[in-house]
Amino acid sequence: MPSSSPCPVARATELLGDRWILLIVRDAFDGVHRFSDFQRSLGVARNILSERLRRLVDGGVLALQPAADGTSYQQYVLTEAGTALFPVVVALRQWGQAQRFTPGEPHSRLVERNSGRELPYMQPRTTKGRVLEAADTLVLKLDQG
Amino acid sequence: MPSSSPCPVARATELLGDRWILLIVRDAFDGVHRFSDFQRSLGVARNILSERLRRLVDGGVLALQPAADGTSYQQYVLTEAGTALFPVVVALRQWGQAQRFTPGEPHSRLVERNSGRELPYMQPRTTKGRVLEAADTLVLKLDQG
Repeated sequence: MPSSSPCPVARATELLGDRWILLIVRDAFDGVHRFSDFQRSLGVARNILSERLRRLVDGGVLALQPAADGTSYQQYVLTEAGTALFPVVVALRQWGQAQRFTPGEPHSRLVERNSGRELPYMQPRTTKGRVLEAADTLVLKLDQG
Repeated sequence: MPSSSPCPVARATELLGDRWILLIVRDAFDGVHRFSDFQRSLGVARNILSERLRRLVDGGVLALQPAADGTSYQQYVLTEAGTALFPVVVALRQWGQAQRFTPGEPHSRLVERNSGRELPYMQPRTTKGRVLEAADTLVLKLDQG
């Protein structure tokens, strides 16, 4: 797979096709900002965490900033490209929820802040709101126009 | 990260947090069914492909079937849990498209089969169709109810 792949899925997975990367992004959405807090949340070796955080910073998904509390700590925050990963995290969560838990098995829930209601299942839709299944769609490769 | 994580994202990434796994799933949606065709598409070593396909079959995402053409080949098809990955693949594609190409750089396109129109950007929404940003949401961990 060349890094100049014309497939957007391939390009995305160059950075995102890794479990720790995805879990760090998840934690960043949940408000984790510091190295030690990522480490506590993930239970991952320092060198692995360090390497993945560097990849995320180099890849423009996280940025390093001085800590909000004025201490000498640095914190990792989602960039605009990082925040744009929200649908990816939601899609992973909703698939995991539906397919990786036994019925009735408890799991964390993603809710709307105001209403406390769980987020509806996210699916591709037409501009008019009709749900699009995979069978309703087609990938046009570059040489097919 | 224990495999009994109460976080659906963590459970999903146990299988999906791997570049080859995600690209095999992408290819399966594009109609690739045979070992040799996955190998040609991905340019991946046989032993790696073999191991990833086995993980996908063991994980209930792909199933092995006799080939549709009546030959002795076997083919890999998406199960129901596999087909349910469509939003994950679309989210990866749309992020890759927006964030991993320079403006005007050509890439493959996911279109609606009937209209030929590119799929609109998929985002989490309320039941009434209002877009939900990450900041509008909250994860309720198990111990928070």
